[in-house]
Amino acid sequence: MTPAHTHSDRVLPAASDQDSQPTGMRLEGGWVIPVEPTGAVLAAHAVVVRDDRIAAVLPRAEAAKAYPELPAIDLSDQILIPGLVNAHTHAAMTLFRGFADDLALSDWLQQRIWPAEARLVTPEFVADGTRLACLEMLRGGVTMFADMYFYPDEAITAAVAAGIRMNVGLVYLTVPTNYAKDQDDYLRKGLEVWHQWRDHPQVQFALAPHATYSTTPDSMKAIPSLCSEHDLGVHTHLHETAQEVSDEQRDFGMTGVARLQQAGALGDRFFGAHGVHLNTNDIAVLAETGSSVVHCPSSNLKLGSGVAPIAELLAAGVNLGLGTDGAASNNRLDLWQELRTAALLAKGITGDPTVLPAHQALRMATLAGAQALGRADDLGSLTPGKQADVVAVSAHSLAGAPIYDPASALVYALGREHVRNVWVAGRQVVAEGVCTTVNEHDALASAGKWLPKVRVDE
Amino acid sequence: MTPAHTHSDRVLPAASDQDSQPTGMRLEGGWVIPVEPTGAVLAAHAVVVRDDRIAAVLPRAEAAKAYPELPAIDLSDQILIPGLVNAHTHAAMTLFRGFADDLALSDWLQQRIWPAEARLVTPEFVADGTRLACLEMLRGGVTMFADMYFYPDEAITAAVAAGIRMNVGLVYLTVPTNYAKDQDDYLRKGLEVWHQWRDHPQVQFALAPHATYSTTPDSMKAIPSLCSEHDLGVHTHLHETAQEVSDEQRDFGMTGVARLQQAGALGDRFFGAHGVHLNTNDIAVLAETGSSVVHCPSSNLKLGSGVAPIAELLAAGVNLGLGTDGAASNNRLDLWQELRTAALLAKGITGDPTVLPAHQALRMATLAGAQALGRADDLGSLTPGKQADVVAVSAHSLAGAPIYDPASALVYALGREHVRNVWVAGRQVVAEGVCTTVNEHDALASAGKWLPKVRVDE
Repeated sequence: MTPAHTHSDRVLPAASDQDSQPTGMRLEGGWVIPVEPTGAVLAAHAVVVRDDRIAAVLPRAEAAKAYPELPAIDLSDQILIPGLVNAHTHAAMTLFRGFADDLALSDWLQQRIWPAEARLVTPEFVADGTRLACLEMLRGGVTMFADMYFYPDEAITAAVAAGIRMNVGLVYLTVPTNYAKDQDDYLRKGLEVWHQWRDHPQVQFALAPHATYSTTPDSMKAIPSLCSEHDLGVHTHLHETAQEVSDEQRDFGMTGVARLQQAGALGDRFFGAHGVHLNTNDIAVLAETGSSVVHCPSSNLKLGSGVAPIAELLAAGVNLGLGTDGAASNNRLDLWQELRTAALLAKGITGDPTVLPAHQALRMATLAGAQALGRADDLGSLTPGKQADVVAVSAHSLAGAPIYDPASALVYALGREHVRNVWVAGRQVVAEGVCTTVNEHDALASAGKWLPKVRVDE
Repeated sequence: MTPAHTHSDRVLPAASDQDSQPTGMRLEGGWVIPVEPTGAVLAAHAVVVRDDRIAAVLPRAEAAKAYPELPAIDLSDQILIPGLVNAHTHAAMTLFRGFADDLALSDWLQQRIWPAEARLVTPEFVADGTRLACLEMLRGGVTMFADMYFYPDEAITAAVAAGIRMNVGLVYLTVPTNYAKDQDDYLRKGLEVWHQWRDHPQVQFALAPHATYSTTPDSMKAIPSLCSEHDLGVHTHLHETAQEVSDEQRDFGMTGVARLQQAGALGDRFFGAHGVHLNTNDIAVLAETGSSVVHCPSSNLKLGSGVAPIAELLAAGVNLGLGTDGAASNNRLDLWQELRTAALLAKGITGDPTVLPAHQALRMATLAGAQALGRADDLGSLTPGKQADVVAVSAHSLAGAPIYDPASALVYALGREHVRNVWVAGRQVVAEGVCTTVNEHDALASAGKWLPKVRVDE
């Protein structure tokens, strides 16, 4: 239980003399939990930021000596961790939060969500909903999210303005929507947006077949070539319900995972959301191919889908990220809640309170999420050379007191309401609890504007 | 989904002329969810408070006409609900929050909690820990808690000063502690405290045999006479782990529930915490006797105990309250978290998203908890004649926006951090997020004082 008060010796070279106007700062934390290496808790360290990257993680005094030119930011009453990665959501659906609760899955989709989407989802809806979602996520310490929804151009515009990182899922499915009329139309529109935004530093893309059951076999076969041609990952809904798995078994004689494997779509750029109903072979295939699963425990519980076999997936070595899913099925874009729920649920379901301990849960919410999105090389931990996505959480609160172990406090006691400061690529986007990039009053007002429109068909 | 915007006609007589100096107020809410009747959502109503009781729940304008002498409090951006009842905790253990996480149950108890208790638990520890717990609970909308710990005199003193209601469990077990050396000593000390505090309006008592496996058969037989002699309910740990149930089956040839039934200890004044491992007969017996179970989902998950059969208990008609358990095994005294976890977990485990809908979850956290504690007649709902324990929650927050259904918002989207105002018996104890009865700075300082003492044996 004793935090390892070790010193980090992972340091990049200090600024050379040529850097006449260095930009950066020394974030002086009460504790730093870098996530890499797992289990490290560094008391009284500084995270040194130069431009958009982490230059060093050092004891405060050493950082002051090595980087005297950089201003010190006093965060001694805060715990510094990497930015959280929400690896599966439908951001714009935040406007549907609480619109359809306590319903059977088929009623939820067919009576509520789909008709409302058909009536309301427009570029303006996506712009307003995504802005609200980005604000909620940033305020709660999420610095990157993987999205899957319609009108990605508007969603990206909102995310870029908010200063959050976005993995854009280029969605396609056999069902027509306002956005696109068929699979080819979805793909054509998606790739146009990819062309437009592909070089933006906050934005990356994944091909997003909605699910194995909702895309055609031909389009599944096309995944590898589309991905290699456009350097895309793959983001899909994977084995969410028992019904879909048994339907596919009936229709194709194999599971969705086996079909994806056959199509060559799995691999270390693949991340599948949910993974609730996976058999032993599915788990082995996901592990062998280096594929990731994004655990969305609140959504899986709330929709009655079940509980993903987290202990089995971890034991097999499958990389596990965390996601909130959309606010129509959660109803919070709160990765802290998922962190806690994942850690508790894994223990309760296995009967083993040592499963998914605090540091491993923190890793799921950060580095493992980054890995799922193909970004473990430059995101997900407070490691010199990586992007400076940093979250500072209050270590001086009623909910946390007393703090024997900051990692335990983060996972089991604290919540997103304790996030005080957030930086993305060295840019401060939350300052003392206030988002600096999105005006909360405006975002709430635009959410309110949609309320009577959504409600009309209740 | 459409909230029932009905008018309440449940009104007590207005103040008579003799009441020359009426004390009270009209709490003018944006919405009022009275919990009784289940499902009611009253837009733009006022909860009228006179002295320590609710006089009426009326549309705001009608309340203004009927009670012009009472000042109006504008809570139009807030949702009013009854105070939450935390029906099982060990308040003083808040000082052990996060001290022993991610450990097997036996290690947790035997290596950590028991040695720390033996070394540290004194009247001062209980006073400081209970004060911290009361502050955390009040800030989170809990207006009554059922406690089970040592040195109840100090715990009561702290709770009374905080202005929270307390059900004091007079604990006894076969294991000696600093507090008492044997069962008789526990009972003697407990009954002394009962004599001293029995008439205090904030305080009530329950006999608290620690668990069926940790009290003697003779003392179990004595429960009915002790309770009737002192007008006590019964509060115990009930079927928390599979191990304890199989041990009792082996040692006594029957379950703990069956033993309690045989002893005549069950009934409508009985509430058992946890109830994770109950067979069909246990559930039938609990239902027949009118006994209550206090569901503690976070603690049961975190310690790997499992998931209580909530759907089966509800179907059998067993009254179900909610509890946080102690902060050493949760680690939050956050009934909002339990509310959400209970609602989600029941759906996920049964595979039915219609199980435990929002209004029923709210009832568990309020009226059902009051019923478990034998107080359904005057607590647990915003009903004229009942005690004025009222919680006002922000309806204008990022986490909740947009609000289609206030009950859904309360259960699935909002959290204790959205509690803005709390009254107990008409006395305001939280005002705009600040506790008026316990100084937060002092409480945190006293928690900090214990930190090095607890940590020494890590």
